[in-house]
Amino acid sequence: MVEAGLAFEVMNAIGLVAFAAVGALKGSDADLDLFGVAVLGFLTALGGGTTRDLLVGRIPTSLQSNIEVLIAAAGVALAVVLAGRVRGDLMESPAVLLPDAIGLAAFAATGAAVGIETGLSPFGVVVTATLTGVGGGSLSDLLLARVPAVLREDFYATPAVVGGAVAPPAVALGLPLGATTLLSAGVVLALRLGALRYGWRLPTV
Amino acid sequence: MVEAGLAFEVMNAIGLVAFAAVGALKGSDADLDLFGVAVLGFLTALGGGTTRDLLVGRIPTSLQSNIEVLIAAAGVALAVVLAGRVRGDLMESPAVLLPDAIGLAAFAATGAAVGIETGLSPFGVVVTATLTGVGGGSLSDLLLARVPAVLREDFYATPAVVGGAVAPPAVALGLPLGATTLLSAGVVLALRLGALRYGWRLPTV
Amino acid sequence: MVEAGLAFEVMNAIGLVAFAAVGALKGSDADLDLFGVAVLGFLTALGGGTTRDLLVGRIPTSLQSNIEVLIAAAGVALAVVLAGRVRGDLMESPAVLLPDAIGLAAFAATGAAVGIETGLSPFGVVVTATLTGVGGGSLSDLLLARVPAVLREDFYATPAVVGGAVAPPAVALGLPLGATTLLSAGVVLALRLGALRYGWRLPTV
Repeated sequence: MVEAGLAFEVMNAIGLVAFAAVGALKGSDADLDLFGVAVLGFLTALGGGTTRDLLVGRIPTSLQSNIEVLIAAAGVALAVVLAGRVRGDLMESPAVLLPDAIGLAAFAATGAAVGIETGLSPFGVVVTATLTGVGGGSLSDLLLARVPAVLREDFYATPAVVGGAVAPPAVALGLPLGATTLLSAGVVLALRLGALRYGWRLPTV
Repeated sequence: MVEAGLAFEVMNAIGLVAFAAVGALKGSDADLDLFGVAVLGFLTALGGGTTRDLLVGRIPTSLQSNIEVLIAAAGVALAVVLAGRVRGDLMESPAVLLPDAIGLAAFAATGAAVGIETGLSPFGVVVTATLTGVGGGSLSDLLLARVPAVLREDFYATPAVVGGAVAPPAVALGLPLGATTLLSAGVVLALRLGALRYGWRLPTV
Repeated sequence: MVEAGLAFEVMNAIGLVAFAAVGALKGSDADLDLFGVAVLGFLTALGGGTTRDLLVGRIPTSLQSNIEVLIAAAGVALAVVLAGRVRGDLMESPAVLLPDAIGLAAFAATGAAVGIETGLSPFGVVVTATLTGVGGGSLSDLLLARVPAVLREDFYATPAVVGGAVAPPAVALGLPLGATTLLSAGVVLALRLGALRYGWRLPTV
């Protein structure tokens, strides 16, 4: 969708698998049936981008292209296989947290690029970046009747916000959109890994 | 909206009344006030189609045509009249379950047809079929801060998924869209009635 | 967006500040972190209009113009400053309820005008009026996994419904759209202030 090179495509694919697997495991932990588990997996992987496409007036890519769906399906399948065997602290293991951080970076950067292409305000770009990054997981929390985890604690949405916020000035300074997308992704990834490493938190008010 | 003959129109109208009544009764059971009961009734009847229209880039029919709204209003009115008299197992009685199954079939088949008209991928057609069938009820569950019933158990969304999944191959094999819509509706209805009769369930994982 | 004079613009700005502050305080009361508090503030102020824009096929104003966002940001900032000092019955004080009622009137009237401009049915106009008025607060309730307050009790959505319902006949009788918008706003404000003064409620069923 946004041209930012092969490395970026790979990051995006890793994110689709990770998000789908995390969403499906969350559904399985909540005792949903197979349909519910699949819905949570696909929604976590594709829901952020779908919501963003709605906001910018596009028919969602997720309903048109097959490739994203197939990659997300692999993540759901992986979760179904794993669900019976591994439990509990899988979600806290680097095997999940690292690909999840890569996905957050790729998704938020894509969201920022779509916002810029659509001519949104800087605030609009921050919204599309953040929503693409954390919207799928938040929607799946809502389906489980839970307050989205990103609103509570954890330094997870903030990297996406910052990754979105750097994009409009970068473009205004003359950076091409592809490079801006990579810059956004790098900022998100660095902040998210830093948060995991050093336990950063936002204050409550 | 989709041309599939008079019988199909009748199925659709039955569904609007049944969905609106079920939604309004759910609101009444949850002690909502009259506004809340009306919102739940209209949302259950019209919310799935409205969400689908948003996904395919249309201004929702529900906000433009009067006829669907009037039929749904009849369902809400019916529920308000019934709410004081009948209780509890009404929702499990054939007088509700049968028209509800007819509505599920008509709605899911309409959703599949809209997805095909819009040129969505097969996955996209399954999404529009399922969302048109179960989206309204799920949104009303969300407004009540409940996990949507279709994600948990019950063989209710699965017929809509299958009804959506048969449509793209049928069209690819040369079946006209009207006939495909009837085929989808037949598949959904047969599966849903089978589930009610034989107590089918999906496994959890 | 809708031309209805300077007084109306001022009402709208008061509403943005009040809604953003109420939303942010709600987030703070629910122990969200700073990101969550900001999301609830912006969503309460801008979420109703954003949802309405989606329904009528527009890219949301909230993502394009800076002025609404800046006004809402002032409301969020105000709430963050107040959160530590004032507690509890602030939400019930006239200092909150009065600007909130003004905002409800301005928002619902704008929603009615947008619905009429888009050529929606009278039901559609009621939906856009109501959703613009109470959609932001309801979405923020949903993010907190609560049943939206407007569905339960309180005479809060009903003024918006009535304000929307008077607009199509007024336009049909030849009233210009600007004057119709002021009429809608006046009806909403009068009903909401009456409800606060006399404790009106809708019945449950």
